[in-house]
Amino acid sequence: MIKYPNLKKVNKEKQQIKSYTSNLGMTLEADLDSTNEYYLLNNIAVIHKKPTPVQIVDVSYPSRNKAKIVEAYYKTPSTTDYNGIYQGRYIDFDAKETKSKTSLPLSNIHPHQVEHLRQVKEHGGISFLIVHWKHYNEYYYLPCEVLLEYWNNKEKGRKSIPYETFKERAHLIKFKYNPRIDYLEIIRLYYL
Amino acid sequence: MIKYPNLKKVNKEKQQIKSYTSNLGMTLEADLDSTNEYYLLNNIAVIHKKPTPVQIVDVSYPSRNKAKIVEAYYKTPSTTDYNGIYQGRYIDFDAKETKSKTSLPLSNIHPHQVEHLRQVKEHGGISFLIVHWKHYNEYYYLPCEVLLEYWNNKEKGRKSIPYETFKERAHLIKFKYNPRIDYLEIIRLYYL
Repeated sequence: MIKYPNLKKVNKEKQQIKSYTSNLGMTLEADLDSTNEYYLLNNIAVIHKKPTPVQIVDVSYPSRNKAKIVEAYYKTPSTTDYNGIYQGRYIDFDAKETKSKTSLPLSNIHPHQVEHLRQVKEHGGISFLIVHWKHYNEYYYLPCEVLLEYWNNKEKGRKSIPYETFKERAHLIKFKYNPRIDYLEIIRLYYL
Repeated sequence: MIKYPNLKKVNKEKQQIKSYTSNLGMTLEADLDSTNEYYLLNNIAVIHKKPTPVQIVDVSYPSRNKAKIVEAYYKTPSTTDYNGIYQGRYIDFDAKETKSKTSLPLSNIHPHQVEHLRQVKEHGGISFLIVHWKHYNEYYYLPCEVLLEYWNNKEKGRKSIPYETFKERAHLIKFKYNPRIDYLEIIRLYYL
C-alpha cells in the first residue's frame, strides 16, 4: 500500500498560514463553514463567508488559460466575513476568538468592521459578533448594540469587553453535533 | 518637478490583469463601486462587492509581520459578487457585460451563481443581474425570475437571452452622473 506523507503536510502548512493571517483558529472557521453548509443544504438560510481580501500585485501566465498569482498581500477587510439571508432578514456578522479568561480586547476588532455592523443595524439588518472563548470553550452571540456601547466609550474607559458582560448580555450558543454553532437559533428566539 | 512614470504603468497593468480574469470590464466594476459608495456615503444602502476569491498555495514571510503570497490562483466564485441591505431588504446580484448585439449567452453565468440567486429569491431576498450591453451602451436590471426561465429551458431550447427580452422584461437603468448606475431606483419603483 502506497502512502502519501507529503499530502497531509501541505494541508497542515496551509492551515497554519491561514490561522496566522486571519486572526481566527481554523476550528472556529471550519465549524462556521459547516454550520452555514447545514443551513444551506437544509434550506434554512443562505449565509456565506466572504473570500479573504487579497491585493494582487503580479500575475504570470505559465500556460495560456491559467493565471498564476506570484505576488499578492493580505488586505484589511472593509466589511465583516459573513453575511446572507434568513427568513427574509439580512444577517451580518464577524467571528472572533480569544484565549483570555477575563475580557475580549476591542483591538481584536477593526474599526471599519464595527462601522459596518452599525450601518447594517441602522438599515434594519441583524448584526452581531460570534465570540469563541477558548479557555471556557464557550461560544457567544454578542448583539451589535452591546459591542457599540463598549466601542463608543473606549476612549474614556476600558478597551475590552469583560467576560461578565458576555454572561449577562450576550447569548450562549450551544455547541452541537450538527449544526455545530447554531447561531440562527438565537436569532429565532430573540430577534424575529 | 519629479515625475514617476512607472507608477501609472503598474496601475494599468493591474487593471488589465483584473479585467482579464473577472469577465467584467473595469468600467462596469468601477461604476458599480462608485454607485455603491454613493449609496453608502448618503446612507441609502449598505452594498459591497465581495473580494475576488483566491486559492492561496504558498506564502513567504520576508519580514516578521508581512506575509507575502507567492503562489495563488483565481477560484470560481461560489456566489455572486455583490450583496447587502436596502430598506431592510437583502439585495444580491451579479454584473455581466456583453459585446453582442443580439443576445446574452448563458455561458457567461456560472451555474452556482444562478443557483445562489434562486436561493436568495426563495428566502425573500431581491436578486437580479445587472447587464451592460456594450454595443448599445445600455444597462439593464434583469429580474431573477426571467433569468431562471431561460436557464431552466436551456437544455431544450436556446442558450442565450435575446436582447428583445431585455427590452420587454428587464428594466433599463439610466446612466447618470452620480450615482452612475442607479439600480436601487428600479427596486424602489418595482420591488418594494
